Amino acid sequence: MIEDKNQQRTALSDLGEFGLIDHLTSQFKVSQKSTIQSIGDDAAVLEFKNKQIVVTTDLLVEGVHFDLSYMPLKHLGYKAVIVNLSDVFAMNAKATQITVSIAVSNRFPLEALEELYAGIGTAAKIYDIDVVGGDTTSSTSGLLISVTAIGEVEKEDVVCRSGAKPNDLLVVTGDLGGAYMGLQVLEREKQVFLVNPNSQPDMEPYSYIIERQLKPEARKDIVKLFKDLEVKPTSMIDVSDGLSSEIMHLCKHSKVGCDLYEEKLPLDPQVISTCEEFNIDSTTVALNGGEDYELLFTLSQEDYPKIKANPNFTVIGYMTEPNVGMHLVTRAETKIPLQAQGWNALNDQE
Amino acid sequence: MIEDKNQQRTALSDLGEFGLIDHLTSQFKVSQKSTIQSIGDDAAVLEFKNKQIVVTTDLLVEGVHFDLSYMPLKHLGYKAVIVNLSDVFAMNAKATQITVSIAVSNRFPLEALEELYAGIGTAAKIYDIDVVGGDTTSSTSGLLISVTAIGEVEKEDVVCRSGAKPNDLLVVTGDLGGAYMGLQVLEREKQVFLVNPNSQPDMEPYSYIIERQLKPEARKDIVKLFKDLEVKPTSMIDVSDGLSSEIMHLCKHSKVGCDLYEEKLPLDPQVISTCEEFNIDSTTVALNGGEDYELLFTLSQEDYPKIKANPNFTVIGYMTEPNVGMHLVTRAETKIPLQAQGWNALNDQE
Repeated sequence: MIEDKNQQRTALSDLGEFGLIDHLTSQFKVSQKSTIQSIGDDAAVLEFKNKQIVVTTDLLVEGVHFDLSYMPLKHLGYKAVIVNLSDVFAMNAKATQITVSIAVSNRFPLEALEELYAGIGTAAKIYDIDVVGGDTTSSTSGLLISVTAIGEVEKEDVVCRSGAKPNDLLVVTGDLGGAYMGLQVLEREKQVFLVNPNSQPDMEPYSYIIERQLKPEARKDIVKLFKDLEVKPTSMIDVSDGLSSEIMHLCKHSKVGCDLYEEKLPLDPQVISTCEEFNIDSTTVALNGGEDYELLFTLSQEDYPKIKANPNFTVIGYMTEPNVGMHLVTRAETKIPLQAQGWNALNDQE
Repeated sequence: MIEDKNQQRTALSDLGEFGLIDHLTSQFKVSQKSTIQSIGDDAAVLEFKNKQIVVTTDLLVEGVHFDLSYMPLKHLGYKAVIVNLSDVFAMNAKATQITVSIAVSNRFPLEALEELYAGIGTAAKIYDIDVVGGDTTSSTSGLLISVTAIGEVEKEDVVCRSGAKPNDLLVVTGDLGGAYMGLQVLEREKQVFLVNPNSQPDMEPYSYIIERQLKPEARKDIVKLFKDLEVKPTSMIDVSDGLSSEIMHLCKHSKVGCDLYEEKLPLDPQVISTCEEFNIDSTTVALNGGEDYELLFTLSQEDYPKIKANPNFTVIGYMTEPNVGMHLVTRAETKIPLQAQGWNALNDQE
């Protein structure tokens, strides 16, 4: 597993209260025109002229959402940002600012927080967003990260969950189930490591799915692509909990039904081979895996020519009248009702 | 102490993932014109025409910021909102929306979360703000609340920490040290209760200071008063960590010094009598107590007639040239350097 070769340990209390904050946040430079006043006052000040603002927030809890025995802190910081940006992009908006709050127990030295903030800084740089505030406090146990993301969008471009109509196409970006299978591999290696700390596993065959789990990306590119293709989805959501659950959200909010085709589910070859190795059904993984941060959207059929043959998109089904219900059409051409995954975390209000 | 007579206990898992969220958030109605889309999508959508937006976030952690043995959950929900609104008002802005994220261990039944959300709802109603999103997740231990508040302000009305000039008056609203002394009383009664659960303490002599601790208010009224009086402070901050610490923030950001007069510190009679009872110096409490959520601001001397004799304001000193430093002028007319309180929580980045 990941070995910590960093022997430097500086107690957080050595820097003093505000020294720590200055130290961790000095890397964050302002690049967004809408950021008027960033970290360093009671609140950040933003200005968006005639745009609508989107706001979303997510909480990541140690032992619930991540396990530091295989999640490097830098990756965790990166992922905490991505999870929120994904929600902004799912509104068809441009992400502009985030705030980051952290509760941390005193078992973490300064160097650990520096790693975490390095990951946050990397994500902020790559996705071109400003870190404009936050709160750093102690916790009685473990690490918790709360990120709030803010974005902007032209009024006429906002895409909600509620606009899907019967006969709209159901489309997903990228492929599904990778993050979940990456987690399975990491969990297995953790068990192996606990038994034999000297084992050196070959992770190469799992590189893609492990990256999907440890360093996911949010689909900023898709929001731009929609603009370039002059496509506006009728409804959209990001795939964080799992495809089934997200489809059910779209159907519920849009008051429509859905037929989803098992044979259309986009799977990476590494997901298929790892599913075989673990003896897990790949359809179940694609439906319920979660954490892929792809975008799931519906599209009026007349827009189909605009996305046809684009490798970013897979049409996986279509919306139906609400009384028809939500179904998975299997490879054997039987129809079974769609079910959301079991109780996981208490989860997202948005 | 506070006895829990509520025998009803519904496990969170009984409601199912999204049932819980619907249940807790159904009380939140939209009242702000700027709220276009609230809870129920990937992100909330807000629209502020030609206004600047302020954003602030705070994290409250069980065992660090609150103790549930004397903090009723309803009060905790209320206070979590107040703490953030106070930061918005400290920018001279109007608070409009909040998001609320909660991590909760399974020792809390549904009824506990309902209490917490009732407090959040009460604060939202009284301060006329919309709850537009959040995240509810499980934690491995304890309760944690993360609130992000959003507000709006005309560009020319924003007051930062950085505008104070030498000779400006230093002014504080309300009185100081009450929340801290309320906490001392509650801590003492908790110890008494642990020894003798049948003791019935008379809390009447401490009613004001206990309310300052358990149900603080944010000074929305002051922002309105500034408008009515046509006063714009040169700098402003809210008193959350303690007066000394906040004065030092204003001085640092504004690059000025300060003379603070001990005899001017506004103290409620209950604070004075409780300080005597606990044998604590009331000046120390006023300087370092924290959690009063009053506003501390600086004002050009020419504006003094506008606030003179207004019972909401106490002039406690004036700003000086930076090379003079920051001093407390004692009742004995000696000058001692101002010092911030010790290491408390890792604290606020804003």
